[in-house]
Amino acid sequence: MIVDCAVYEDGVRRQGHHDLEHLLERIDNEHDFVWIGLHEPTPEEFDSVAREFGLHELAVEDAIHAHQRPKMELYDDTVFLVLKTARYVDHEEVIELGEILIFIGEGFIVTVRHGQATELKDVRRDIEAQPELLKHGPAAVLHAIADRVVDEYQPALEGLDEDITEVENEVFSEAAPNRAERIYKLKREVLQFLRAAAPLGEPMERLATRDVPQIDPEVRNYFRDVNDHLHRVQDQLESYRDLLTSVLEANLSQLGVRQNEDMRKISAWVAIAAVPTMIAGIYGMNFDHMPELGWTLGYPAVLTVMLVACGSLYRSFKRAGWL
Amino acid sequence: MIVDCAVYEDGVRRQGHHDLEHLLERIDNEHDFVWIGLHEPTPEEFDSVAREFGLHELAVEDAIHAHQRPKMELYDDTVFLVLKTARYVDHEEVIELGEILIFIGEGFIVTVRHGQATELKDVRRDIEAQPELLKHGPAAVLHAIADRVVDEYQPALEGLDEDITEVENEVFSEAAPNRAERIYKLKREVLQFLRAAAPLGEPMERLATRDVPQIDPEVRNYFRDVNDHLHRVQDQLESYRDLLTSVLEANLSQLGVRQNEDMRKISAWVAIAAVPTMIAGIYGMNFDHMPELGWTLGYPAVLTVMLVACGSLYRSFKRAGWL
Amino acid sequence: MIVDCAVYEDGVRRQGHHDLEHLLERIDNEHDFVWIGLHEPTPEEFDSVAREFGLHELAVEDAIHAHQRPKMELYDDTVFLVLKTARYVDHEEVIELGEILIFIGEGFIVTVRHGQATELKDVRRDIEAQPELLKHGPAAVLHAIADRVVDEYQPALEGLDEDITEVENEVFSEAAPNRAERIYKLKREVLQFLRAAAPLGEPMERLATRDVPQIDPEVRNYFRDVNDHLHRVQDQLESYRDLLTSVLEANLSQLGVRQNEDMRKISAWVAIAAVPTMIAGIYGMNFDHMPELGWTLGYPAVLTVMLVACGSLYRSFKRAGWL
Amino acid sequence: MIVDCAVYEDGVRRQGHHDLEHLLERIDNEHDFVWIGLHEPTPEEFDSVAREFGLHELAVEDAIHAHQRPKMELYDDTVFLVLKTARYVDHEEVIELGEILIFIGEGFIVTVRHGQATELKDVRRDIEAQPELLKHGPAAVLHAIADRVVDEYQPALEGLDEDITEVENEVFSEAAPNRAERIYKLKREVLQFLRAAAPLGEPMERLATRDVPQIDPEVRNYFRDVNDHLHRVQDQLESYRDLLTSVLEANLSQLGVRQNEDMRKISAWVAIAAVPTMIAGIYGMNFDHMPELGWTLGYPAVLTVMLVACGSLYRSFKRAGWL
Amino acid sequence: MIVDCAVYEDGVRRQGHHDLEHLLERIDNEHDFVWIGLHEPTPEEFDSVAREFGLHELAVEDAIHAHQRPKMELYDDTVFLVLKTARYVDHEEVIELGEILIFIGEGFIVTVRHGQATELKDVRRDIEAQPELLKHGPAAVLHAIADRVVDEYQPALEGLDEDITEVENEVFSEAAPNRAERIYKLKREVLQFLRAAAPLGEPMERLATRDVPQIDPEVRNYFRDVNDHLHRVQDQLESYRDLLTSVLEANLSQLGVRQNEDMRKISAWVAIAAVPTMIAGIYGMNFDHMPELGWTLGYPAVLTVMLVACGSLYRSFKRAGWL
Repeated sequence: MIVDCAVYEDGVRRQGHHDLEHLLERIDNEHDFVWIGLHEPTPEEFDSVAREFGLHELAVEDAIHAHQRPKMELYDDTVFLVLKTARYVDHEEVIELGEILIFIGEGFIVTVRHGQATELKDVRRDIEAQPELLKHGPAAVLHAIADRVVDEYQPALEGLDEDITEVENEVFSEAAPNRAERIYKLKREVLQFLRAAAPLGEPMERLATRDVPQIDPEVRNYFRDVNDHLHRVQDQLESYRDLLTSVLEANLSQLGVRQNEDMRKISAWVAIAAVPTMIAGIYGMNFDHMPELGWTLGYPAVLTVMLVACGSLYRSFKRAGWL
Repeated sequence: MIVDCAVYEDGVRRQGHHDLEHLLERIDNEHDFVWIGLHEPTPEEFDSVAREFGLHELAVEDAIHAHQRPKMELYDDTVFLVLKTARYVDHEEVIELGEILIFIGEGFIVTVRHGQATELKDVRRDIEAQPELLKHGPAAVLHAIADRVVDEYQPALEGLDEDITEVENEVFSEAAPNRAERIYKLKREVLQFLRAAAPLGEPMERLATRDVPQIDPEVRNYFRDVNDHLHRVQDQLESYRDLLTSVLEANLSQLGVRQNEDMRKISAWVAIAAVPTMIAGIYGMNFDHMPELGWTLGYPAVLTVMLVACGSLYRSFKRAGWL
Repeated sequence: MIVDCAVYEDGVRRQGHHDLEHLLERIDNEHDFVWIGLHEPTPEEFDSVAREFGLHELAVEDAIHAHQRPKMELYDDTVFLVLKTARYVDHEEVIELGEILIFIGEGFIVTVRHGQATELKDVRRDIEAQPELLKHGPAAVLHAIADRVVDEYQPALEGLDEDITEVENEVFSEAAPNRAERIYKLKREVLQFLRAAAPLGEPMERLATRDVPQIDPEVRNYFRDVNDHLHRVQDQLESYRDLLTSVLEANLSQLGVRQNEDMRKISAWVAIAAVPTMIAGIYGMNFDHMPELGWTLGYPAVLTVMLVACGSLYRSFKRAGWL
Repeated sequence: MIVDCAVYEDGVRRQGHHDLEHLLERIDNEHDFVWIGLHEPTPEEFDSVAREFGLHELAVEDAIHAHQRPKMELYDDTVFLVLKTARYVDHEEVIELGEILIFIGEGFIVTVRHGQATELKDVRRDIEAQPELLKHGPAAVLHAIADRVVDEYQPALEGLDEDITEVENEVFSEAAPNRAERIYKLKREVLQFLRAAAPLGEPMERLATRDVPQIDPEVRNYFRDVNDHLHRVQDQLESYRDLLTSVLEANLSQLGVRQNEDMRKISAWVAIAAVPTMIAGIYGMNFDHMPELGWTLGYPAVLTVMLVACGSLYRSFKRAGWL
Repeated sequence: MIVDCAVYEDGVRRQGHHDLEHLLERIDNEHDFVWIGLHEPTPEEFDSVAREFGLHELAVEDAIHAHQRPKMELYDDTVFLVLKTARYVDHEEVIELGEILIFIGEGFIVTVRHGQATELKDVRRDIEAQPELLKHGPAAVLHAIADRVVDEYQPALEGLDEDITEVENEVFSEAAPNRAERIYKLKREVLQFLRAAAPLGEPMERLATRDVPQIDPEVRNYFRDVNDHLHRVQDQLESYRDLLTSVLEANLSQLGVRQNEDMRKISAWVAIAAVPTMIAGIYGMNFDHMPELGWTLGYPAVLTVMLVACGSLYRSFKRAGWL
């Protein structure tokens, strides 16, 4: 689906609706450009775009099928960039990935969204409000999108952070329930997120430092800034991964401790029950000469002994922390 | 076994059957070439091929004995490439590897299949339908094969993915059966797959970026694309490896939990049985003066006490989740 | 908040209070410079500083929002450096991070503190006492701050070290209490500290070895020295990380051992109690012909047997280390 | 001990016994050379060799004391290479390492064997049968030896492989015996093997690709081939290491499971024994009014009840897999 | 403390005692030099040395405070090298580190020892016995010291090796005692040793291969040799680290096994005791019609049954390996 198709002249959007064909011919000045936004285009829809801007066959295939890793390719005079967006769906504790594919060339930028990718409407609105930025051409739009995508990693990270803190608190709480499943699933999400974000570093690095002729040199510092944010995201994700590995192990320790506590509690009760049973056994013996059996107060005395023994056992178990 | 032997002129297969000898002499134009396909050739069979195309002794030895790691070697004016194919045999949960060895030189390509390697019949049919591709010479065939091999990693990955998800579900299910063996074996397969796929990256990189004179420069971007797919496969496999390591640990936690549950269940029943035994012991004592023994309803009363005690213990264990 | 604003001429602080505006105009000689110190400035406060010294928009944004990773950026003729300070809050066993951001350009240095960052008052006082250093210009101040920040990692490291030693002693003590939580939390702090300190290495390296024109070449060796200290901090933190991973595992072993000891203790008592119960059971049988039952000393004899059996069991358990 | 000392002229061994002294003077043509083979030489034996060929003092020391890591050094115009041989002693499950040290210079090759190193007799015989190879000079011999050494890693690998498979089968067998010791020892061997084989890669790489003037350029491809085999060995060893780490963990899971099974079996029997004890306790009470006690068939009836209760418990435990 | 101060002319020590001041003026020839040895000098002591040889302020500070990581710095025309010595204190199982700091410049070498560092007396004596070496100037001394330091890593390694083997034997012995603490502490020592030795590689590499003008090119090969030994030490330490990690895990398995054995032993005894208790319970019932009770041999028969039952249980537990 073609979502939007605009022509920017001297940083300002030209009024009116524009037809795809012959768009490029209408671009006169160096920094004027066309921005076409698509959402999960059909091969047919994309075909006309590809023909109009002379996009490379391989990139076109990637753009339609998506499921790429973040990367940047240079085809002749076109730059092809793949970005992964991330959103944290809190109630499922799942990182939901989307994909934005971008083509940049002389006088045009084509953006293709797939899946749950961030909508670019807001990016367009924000950047249209800054004509002086738009004058830098498509590279400014590329930066605006990359910046937005990486900025939106932040709330996803925070979602993860909260859930990791929660799982830590659970594992180290008194109850020490088994949280292996939750920890494992959070780790899986962290690994997936890392796989989506980390490979973007290399394209950002290249855009920031090397000579990609399609990128206005003045915009380069801005990509370095994006890369910086990306680094922070990656650092954070890697430390989440390490922490979750440790929590999984700590979880095992906590379970072991709880198991031991259960065992001691059980054993304490068994020991308490064993005492009257033993005493009763003794006075159940059939010896002819057991003087206590003849005492009038023998029975209540023995019951008292039993109670006292059990009580003092209970007290000492309590004091030792077994009960 | 020589499976096929074809001459391509200007992108089109020349009709008729061709004899191995003097094949090269019949190649006139720059992009015309011979494609010889072999399957587990005997040394004798391969000898004539090697002589005809002047293949290097070391590569010939590798081609006959197979069991190479993926690699690319340049011998004078011949390129020698080793690829590993992978197939997931679902009912055995095993990655089955095959091997394809390829020689490319001026005017020829020789392909040798070993083991369960993907058949190249389909690749040949597909590429013969695209004469404009075939015009790029043997490099186009090389790309078609590499592309197919890497594409076929995908279903193998998916097979693994399904089994990993299954094992995750089992480990975190109520029953929490011990899945250490299955997890371990999946990990072994992942490691084996990784060992087969990862080293291919370096040759693809070289074919994509550096000057391998035997490769038509226009085909280079296509190898970069293959490399990209390979990267995704590798990323995926590495995260499988990490996940399986974590699942193995989580499996231990789950076992610990189940073990604890069993222990608590057993202990609860033992405690329930200990109560009537203790009471019975008390009334089995032989004191002369135990008034209860003389009561008419003493016996049914004690039985009732026993039942009530057991019942309330049972209820409280049930409530605590021990039973 | 603007904390201080001073002009240094020939290594000496010029008397009097200075207004922000037109400060640079008053700098005449090459090594004279202005040092402006800010603490969590509002955007408005920082705006005038940024305008006066022509600071780059991206760096300004970073300086106000903080939460950067340590890094160095070159914007035209300004150097922008981010440092993380670390302080160990012993009673909470937490590393508290702060942030210092520094701009250096021709004739000026601007320092911005955020959070719990080390106060720079002392640095200023110390360096003002060394006019010959101040003559090297802003680079000398930059070094003084970096040196102080890295020096203050040392007490934080020592705090960690103490707590790690303490946790080791606890884990390997007789009581072998479960220390999983404390170990885990120390590890989290170590990872966080590492993330704050390690990335600083690259800027220090660049300041020490490469041509950052804003840095007086004579000051370079001093940055190498800072980098060296940083390396030591990083080595130490990495080995803490490894050790804590091992302690967590050792903790599990110790728990297992203690659990086993508890189990053996319990079992020993159960075994001791089982013996008189069994003997009493035997003499509680109702056979007509049990000669012992008729003996006058039967009962005391059996009691003695019971005591002796229990006593010798107790002794042998004691000797085996079960009790 | 000097094992052999031969002069090769134009690829053919010159007849007769040769004296060490003045050997080099008798070499006339470029590709003629002397090959001296030693086995654990005494310092005196080696001294004369070192003097004759002008070997560097440091290399000489290494050659006598052995226990080097694989490496290559260039001393002026002499190449010094250290190789580690590996043999798997199956009944001890131990990798036995040997060492071969090689000096190559203009017109000579000196080989020194230490410990259980592969005998070079066969290598000498094989290469003497290929005069066209020997014409390439000492480099051909160097290749023949390196090739042999790396080829002999293969059976060692296979020995390890078999034992690892065996240990896997044991760990995952019904009996699930504790195999921690065996796994650990195999891992130790794998690490030792890896330490012996891996560092050889760098010298092979250098021999294959860079300009070591003592190596005939035509022989270079052959070293690349050796390096390739070495890579495979290393890949294999690294995956053994990873697998053994996982097996060790899986072993723990299996032990946990078996422990749980034992516990359940024990508990089942205890529960079965507790039932008749409890019933017997009840009928051992001394109430005056217990009608069952007066029944003629009371005793057999109770016995029957006990048997039935035990039997049905046994059956249900059996069905639940506890027995 | 100034330990020794000698002037070497043409490889020979000049007789007599020398005063620190004006020492350098007395050096005439290119390879003549002064060697000053200090041990934990006070700042005052070191000050005069620093002034005499023009040592850089930063290096001087390092030399007095020690606690550096191994490194090499070039200050103008002075080389500053930090070495860590290691000694294994066997009865405490602790690696004791010392530090040697070396300054080399035109015509002088200054060595500073801290802590338990190897004494350099022997090095001095050995090298004074080799005038031809001393002629190479201070670089020869530098090599002699580095060589000695790295050589002395060997006995420390061997001490560790012995203790690791001992701990392995303990862990896998019949008794399988918990060795977590000892393993952990050995690992800590290995990590500390590694941290002291590994960073020395880079300076040795630089001394061996690059142009450090203060180093006589003829001495370079010797540093490569030291580096080689260092590599071996590092390889060894890294494999110790890996092995200790595995032993710690194996220790857990062994503990689990022993715990299980304890549990089975206990359970077996409990089962053996349960049988006579159960039988006694049956014959303790008060049924009027229990024919066995009236038999004259009833009591001894039951006792025999009990003994036989216990005996056969004992035998079968013995056979199953539970007792």
